[in-house]
Amino acid sequence: MYRDSNTRTLLKTVTWRITATATTTILVFLFTGAIDTAIQVGLLELLAKMLFYYLHERGWDKIKWGKEEVPAFVLWITGIPCSGKTTLATMIKEELSKEKLRVQHLDSHDVRPLFPETGFTREEVNNHIKRVGHLASMLEKNGIITIASFVSPYRESRTFVRKLCQNYVEVHLDTTAEVARRYDHNGFYKKVDEGIYKNVPGVDVEYEICENTEYTLDMTEKNLEEAKQEIMQVIKSRYIK
Amino acid sequence: MYRDSNTRTLLKTVTWRITATATTTILVFLFTGAIDTAIQVGLLELLAKMLFYYLHERGWDKIKWGKEEVPAFVLWITGIPCSGKTTLATMIKEELSKEKLRVQHLDSHDVRPLFPETGFTREEVNNHIKRVGHLASMLEKNGIITIASFVSPYRESRTFVRKLCQNYVEVHLDTTAEVARRYDHNGFYKKVDEGIYKNVPGVDVEYEICENTEYTLDMTEKNLEEAKQEIMQVIKSRYIK
Repeated sequence: MYRDSNTRTLLKTVTWRITATATTTILVFLFTGAIDTAIQVGLLELLAKMLFYYLHERGWDKIKWGKEEVPAFVLWITGIPCSGKTTLATMIKEELSKEKLRVQHLDSHDVRPLFPETGFTREEVNNHIKRVGHLASMLEKNGIITIASFVSPYRESRTFVRKLCQNYVEVHLDTTAEVARRYDHNGFYKKVDEGIYKNVPGVDVEYEICENTEYTLDMTEKNLEEAKQEIMQVIKSRYIK
Repeated sequence: MYRDSNTRTLLKTVTWRITATATTTILVFLFTGAIDTAIQVGLLELLAKMLFYYLHERGWDKIKWGKEEVPAFVLWITGIPCSGKTTLATMIKEELSKEKLRVQHLDSHDVRPLFPETGFTREEVNNHIKRVGHLASMLEKNGIITIASFVSPYRESRTFVRKLCQNYVEVHLDTTAEVARRYDHNGFYKKVDEGIYKNVPGVDVEYEICENTEYTLDMTEKNLEEAKQEIMQVIKSRYIK
């Protein structure tokens, strides 16, 4: 809950008084033709109404009615490794923070202290994603916009998360391992080639597409800036306004 | 982030206009002695200024400066089983919700979907509490007041959580297993007697007190209503104001 500070109310008092007293003085002058009366009324009004306005504002600040919160939502970004999920999530978070909205970004790095290291079998990955879904939903319930960027290749766990959340938007960064390799700065695919990483979606495990994914962006054709703008447009029209 | 709705601004416009136009009309009458001029100025002002006031309010609503958020904090309630932690947490959450503040209550039930079932050795309990601490700190960073009610008997993990959080207040419900038994509605201590539950703080494991616990409430003498009032007073003077 946000509350107005005293100085905010004071500054509002001044800006309003300039607008209002000018109006009154002009009106009195137009009606009476007497510039001195107009100025006298204006001056007295200046003092009396600044006090009244300040008290009126402080009183209203205690009334919560009509203060509306921007609805929270969960933006779930999914796709094979190195498809640009985390970078895109960071870009969108930055945009939303400019609007002074509360945003929590969740990716495998952020949730590591919360959820013990997990394996890469289908069951382990599904359980991990479901736990992240519970966390995202808890944040959403508390009014926090949540951006999750996880490979999350299995339909089962993504559907589970969708059901947990109130406002869930799934964005699939659709690309191929060949294109993803170009954006691989950490040698991930090298380790795949060497056989160190197994069960890699897009390589030796299928990435399961979902019919109800809200946005599938063809990342073999789009760049991240275009993807960001497309998603921001959706978010703005749906939630922020 | 909260924003004023259009209807809120409209209602503010009306309440302010009644206050302000009455002032102007009286002032013009006092200066000119002419009741008809006073009413004419008043009427024209009524219309012109309602429009200006509305626009002034909508403009200010876009300015975030001076909108202050109530600071979030983590209230950590600790104590042996059946000392009243969860009930007290629920009572405090209710009080805070009345003030339209965002509050998340975390107890072992709430975090079960997030953190896989954990054991009761010292190390397992410490790890579990540390994970809860990470969650509480994430919520706090996002402006959510967090009330955690966990036995959390070990100094090590409570100190760890304290360091993670910005505003951390620890409340120890200090009681004995004899007194706690009276509030045991789920047969917890019966299972302890039967040897089903082991490593129970206050019974066969020491509850480790902390020197820097903010409030130690002697629950052999106080009831929960008194405890609630004491803690609410602290919270109000420290954070809510």
